[in-house]
Amino acid sequence: MAKSPEQEHPRKAFGWAARDNSGTLSPFPFSRRENGVDDVTIKILYSGVCHSDLHSLKNDWGVTNYPIVPGHEIAGVVTTVGNNVTKFKVGDKVGVGVMVSSCKQCENCQQDLENYCPKMILTYNSKYHDGTKTYGGYSDIIVVDQHYVLRFPDNMPLDGGAPLLCAGITVYSPMKYYGMTERGKHLGVAGLGGLGHVAVKIGKAFGLKVTVISTSPKKESEAINRLGADAFLVSSDPAKFKAAMGTIDYIIDTVSAVHPLTPLLALLKVNGKLVTLGLPEKPLELPIFPLVLGRKLVGGSDIGGMKETQEMLDFCAKHNITADIELIKMDQINTAMERLAKSDVRYRFVIDVGNSSML
Amino acid sequence: MAKSPEQEHPRKAFGWAARDNSGTLSPFPFSRRENGVDDVTIKILYSGVCHSDLHSLKNDWGVTNYPIVPGHEIAGVVTTVGNNVTKFKVGDKVGVGVMVSSCKQCENCQQDLENYCPKMILTYNSKYHDGTKTYGGYSDIIVVDQHYVLRFPDNMPLDGGAPLLCAGITVYSPMKYYGMTERGKHLGVAGLGGLGHVAVKIGKAFGLKVTVISTSPKKESEAINRLGADAFLVSSDPAKFKAAMGTIDYIIDTVSAVHPLTPLLALLKVNGKLVTLGLPEKPLELPIFPLVLGRKLVGGSDIGGMKETQEMLDFCAKHNITADIELIKMDQINTAMERLAKSDVRYRFVIDVGNSSML
Repeated sequence: MAKSPEQEHPRKAFGWAARDNSGTLSPFPFSRRENGVDDVTIKILYSGVCHSDLHSLKNDWGVTNYPIVPGHEIAGVVTTVGNNVTKFKVGDKVGVGVMVSSCKQCENCQQDLENYCPKMILTYNSKYHDGTKTYGGYSDIIVVDQHYVLRFPDNMPLDGGAPLLCAGITVYSPMKYYGMTERGKHLGVAGLGGLGHVAVKIGKAFGLKVTVISTSPKKESEAINRLGADAFLVSSDPAKFKAAMGTIDYIIDTVSAVHPLTPLLALLKVNGKLVTLGLPEKPLELPIFPLVLGRKLVGGSDIGGMKETQEMLDFCAKHNITADIELIKMDQINTAMERLAKSDVRYRFVIDVGNSSML
Repeated sequence: MAKSPEQEHPRKAFGWAARDNSGTLSPFPFSRRENGVDDVTIKILYSGVCHSDLHSLKNDWGVTNYPIVPGHEIAGVVTTVGNNVTKFKVGDKVGVGVMVSSCKQCENCQQDLENYCPKMILTYNSKYHDGTKTYGGYSDIIVVDQHYVLRFPDNMPLDGGAPLLCAGITVYSPMKYYGMTERGKHLGVAGLGGLGHVAVKIGKAFGLKVTVISTSPKKESEAINRLGADAFLVSSDPAKFKAAMGTIDYIIDTVSAVHPLTPLLALLKVNGKLVTLGLPEKPLELPIFPLVLGRKLVGGSDIGGMKETQEMLDFCAKHNITADIELIKMDQINTAMERLAKSDVRYRFVIDVGNSSML
């Protein structure tokens, strides 16, 4: 018979878990593995609340294995290192993102694309090498192979930096891969949420003109005045939208609901690129004429590899980029999830794990 | 009152035109403009029959202005050159493709991308600078600005070379633009028609492994034995199809009917690229999960600029690539169109204009 979550490993841990698709989180005593030779143990101080956490809690994608402890934007301090660990020492400020392992041998792993490794193990709701379930950052400690641990630059705060480990790399990686970083070019950011607001900041840091594309007219002021976007387009102002057609070089599309691509493709110039990062549960309608007649492309991208994630953290530190966050205590998480479902957050909840009671 | 097609220009010309959306072609006396200082006059010897011609004849895209003389895969011999013409002399073997003019000033024209110029003028069914309609290659002569005329390499036959001016450049240009030419990589060609069969040949010339993807099992032998493809996949053999999943680097999708992208995307490796060249009248369904989780892209492309079209002709000449054609006389064109509608051609009809009576 399988051991209970409290008994399967030697080290006591406390987190908050959902037990069913109500998604309600509550205290969850469990355990973590002994720190291996390649592992670091991290005392978790902050954990970002990603929209994927909400999808997973509710089993929206049909793959949730309860109980589930979410959290893949983890920031904390190293408390133990294994004998083979060279990258980190006790006391280092570190982070863990969306994955905690991969095969290290396939073509993707060899090219620092562990995020596309077919055997990639997610930070939560995955099965680890030893057969036990992975539990995420809504908890007090985590034990992770050093290869999947990021170093926080000295000047980066742990709370505002934590969300970069998912939201930051998810927008940074496609901008690099698809060639969307040429100074002076025009970037559109569709959807102004956790990902979108970081995309605006990273786009500005690359020297791009940034236009936010939203369905919500009330976001105009914050897009421009708070986040530094250059322009704002809203679907409810068709005249302004029409005037912007053919003026944008790249679009980062962070909208995760089913939505029309035609208006976004119309905004793009010839050779324009649209990268979609959300995971709508149904296919989108793809009009072919604009793709062919304007040599446009629609591509996807999924987080980033470990090397590129570190590069992104260093880039953000250099440009003083962090996520705009609302800090909550662990016991406020269920209310936060309700607000997140209504996009009522500017722009990321982060759990102050270090100052929360986990019981 | 507008002058008749016979009277609007000084030089007599004879072609075959459709007068209505029956699409039936019949003799059509009209006229061509006087040869200007930048123009060359071409005695047309061969004219390829593109599937776009059939769409245009039938007004499938709703933009046909009757009478229409199709033909944008034109090969012939120069008979007159204007005073400013430096590129060509009388007697040169030349070709004309899909366009006969553009603005020469916009960002696209400046980058040798006349094919994406918003003022690009098509070889037929467009309005020329002087306000008259353009008539295509199903005719005895044509007068064209030298910039839009291609030189046929010495060793390239005019009949088999003519289709390269549309079918050839349409597959060559995206392979270059999207980076689909790395020796040893694996190219899929979806649809084995006029474009597809040239894509197989060009793919092999780039040193790629080429797999033809078809709905028609009977094309397997010709794909491999006649065209030199390395492998053949057919949707009616799901086991073989499944075994090929995740093995292809690039796909050239020449299918112009509405068709599912999901199976094609499944064939692609991580970072795989699918370029769609057909113009289905309805949007296609685009599944987002494979795009995101495999960093795949779907792009389009439309013919190519003049410089790249010449490069393609030279490339094909070097590699002895021509289209596989069935030569017909002008008065066989209506039967040929009926057969084309049923894909009953291996792989391109070419009208032997030089040896046809145009009356």
